Amino acid sequence: MGTGYVRSMQPVVHVAPESDRAIEEAITTAGGRVGALEEAEALVWLGSNPNSFPELPDSVRWVQLPSAGVESWLDKLDDKRVWTSATIAFGKPVAEHALTLMLASVRRIADCVRAQTWTEPPVRPLEGSTVAIVGTGAIGGALIGLLEPFDVEVVAVTRRGRDGTLPVDRLPEALPRADFVVIAAPATPATRHLIGAAELDAMRTDAWLVNVSRGTLVDTDALVAALAAGSIGGAALDVTDPEPLPDEHPLWRAPNALITPHVANPAATLRRYLAGEVKENVARFAKGEPLMSPIDLGAGY
Amino acid sequence: MGTGYVRSMQPVVHVAPESDRAIEEAITTAGGRVGALEEAEALVWLGSNPNSFPELPDSVRWVQLPSAGVESWLDKLDDKRVWTSATIAFGKPVAEHALTLMLASVRRIADCVRAQTWTEPPVRPLEGSTVAIVGTGAIGGALIGLLEPFDVEVVAVTRRGRDGTLPVDRLPEALPRADFVVIAAPATPATRHLIGAAELDAMRTDAWLVNVSRGTLVDTDALVAALAAGSIGGAALDVTDPEPLPDEHPLWRAPNALITPHVANPAATLRRYLAGEVKENVARFAKGEPLMSPIDLGAGY
Repeated sequence: MGTGYVRSMQPVVHVAPESDRAIEEAITTAGGRVGALEEAEALVWLGSNPNSFPELPDSVRWVQLPSAGVESWLDKLDDKRVWTSATIAFGKPVAEHALTLMLASVRRIADCVRAQTWTEPPVRPLEGSTVAIVGTGAIGGALIGLLEPFDVEVVAVTRRGRDGTLPVDRLPEALPRADFVVIAAPATPATRHLIGAAELDAMRTDAWLVNVSRGTLVDTDALVAALAAGSIGGAALDVTDPEPLPDEHPLWRAPNALITPHVANPAATLRRYLAGEVKENVARFAKGEPLMSPIDLGAGY
Repeated sequence: MGTGYVRSMQPVVHVAPESDRAIEEAITTAGGRVGALEEAEALVWLGSNPNSFPELPDSVRWVQLPSAGVESWLDKLDDKRVWTSATIAFGKPVAEHALTLMLASVRRIADCVRAQTWTEPPVRPLEGSTVAIVGTGAIGGALIGLLEPFDVEVVAVTRRGRDGTLPVDRLPEALPRADFVVIAAPATPATRHLIGAAELDAMRTDAWLVNVSRGTLVDTDALVAALAAGSIGGAALDVTDPEPLPDEHPLWRAPNALITPHVANPAATLRRYLAGEVKENVARFAKGEPLMSPIDLGAGY
C-alpha cells in the first residue's frame, strides 16, 4: 500500500464522476487544485456504483471513496495507493438517524401515523434505557455523544473489546440487558448475520433492534420470525437485506417494523458532510500526514 | 397565599384520588408519612380531572398537582396554601418527545411509514439547524440540553426576554430564521393563538412547527390553511385544539401534519418522573424550604 506521506505542495485532485461545488471548494480551501485525472495525484470519487470506477493512472496516490461502508469496493482496491472511506462524513448524520429511529420506536410514531385517530399508544421514554451499540467507529462514537444528555447506560461492543468495550464474542451478555441493540459495525464476512435467531432470542421482548450499518449484519428471515412471534419489541431499520427491500417482502408487513430506505445520510446532505472530510484529507495529503479513515485491506473496512 | 415555609418534622401527606406505590415511597423516603386527608398537611393529587378535586381542610398547606400545565385548575386554586405544578417531572420526558417530533419531521418518518415501499423521501439533518424555542421553563430548558450535541443555533423566546432570551413581542424576528419553531410555553390568556396566520406566514416554507405545550397556543384553522398552502414545511403536534382531535378534523388529513395524542409524558411514565419531584418537595416542605414549581396565581402558571 502507498503511504501517502509524500508531501505535495499543491496536490492536483480529480473529482468524478461528476463535479461538485462544495467538494471542489473544499479541495482548493485545503491548498489543492482541481484537475484532470491524467495529471491527478488524488481522486475524490462521488459515484455510488463501483462498476463505473475508472482505471487509475499510477500518479494517483490517494483515492477518497464516498461511503462509510466499503465492502462493495474491496475488489477495486489495490495496494498501489492509499484508499480512504468517508467514515467521518457519515458519523454524525447516521448517528442522528439512529437516534431518530430509537426515539420514533419507543414513542410509537409509526403507530400514531397509522392510527389517524386520537388513541394513546404505549409510549415509553428513551431516558434511563440501556443501549447496546455494536461498533464504536465514527457512527457509534457520534451516537454515544448524542445519547449523552439522556442518562442512558451504553454498552459498547467492538470486535476486539478494546478501551473498556465488550468484545463481540461476549455480545450474548449484552443482549438480555439492552432496551436497544444498535448495529453500527461494518459489513465483513465476520459480521454477516451477527444478529441471527439466537441473538434475537436473547433480546428482551420489549427491546428494539436498530440497524444503520448494513442489512447483511442481520438475518432477515430470523428477524421476520422474531417480529411475528413478538419475541422482540420491534426493529427500526435504515438498511435491509435484500436492499432495496422488494414491495412483496414480509418485513414490510411485520409488526413493529419501522423501515427507512437507506436515507441516514442521503445524497443531498452527504456532499456537505463529505466536503469537511475531503478538506481535512487534502490538507493532510499536501503536508504528507496520515489521512483520516484509511481503509485496512485486510480487515475489509 | 400560604408560605409553606413552616417546618413540619414528619409531614402527613395524602395521596389521591388513588394510591400509588412510587409516589408513596417518595413521600416516606423524603421523611413524610402517608395519611388520610382529614389529618393531612399536604396533598399529592394524581387525578387529571379538576372537577373531581376534593374540598380541602385548612390543615392542608401545600397541594402538588400532577401536570405542568395548570390552566384548567386555576379556579380551584385558593390563596390559603401553596400550590405546585409538576414542571420538573414534565421537563425531561416532554423535551424528549419534542426532540422526537423534530427528528421524525426532518427525517420523514411519517412518509416512510405511509410509503411501505423503498422510495427515498427528502430527508435532511437536524444538525446545523436554527431552533426557535418559545418558553424556557423546565421543558424548553431540558430541550436545550438535549440539543447540545447537535450543533444547532437555539433562539430562546420568553415572556420578558430575560437572561439573553428574546422577549415574545420580538418573536417575528425569530420566525423567519428558524428551521423549527418549538412551542413550550404555558397556556395563558396572553399566549392564546400566539402562533396565528401572521406568525405562520413569517415562517420559512421548509420550517416545522412543533407543539408540546397546549393546543390553544396555535390557531388551528390558520395552521390547517398554512399546511394546505405549503407555506410552512409541516407541523408536529403532541397537543391540539380541540383536544382530543375529532376523527373528522381536517388537521388529520393536512399535508405534513404529524400528530401524537398528548403522550409526551404518558400516565405510565408520569408517576416515575413525578415521584422524583414529590420526593424533593416533601423534603423541602419538612424543612420549611421554598417548594419547587410553585404556581403564580397572577401569571396563571
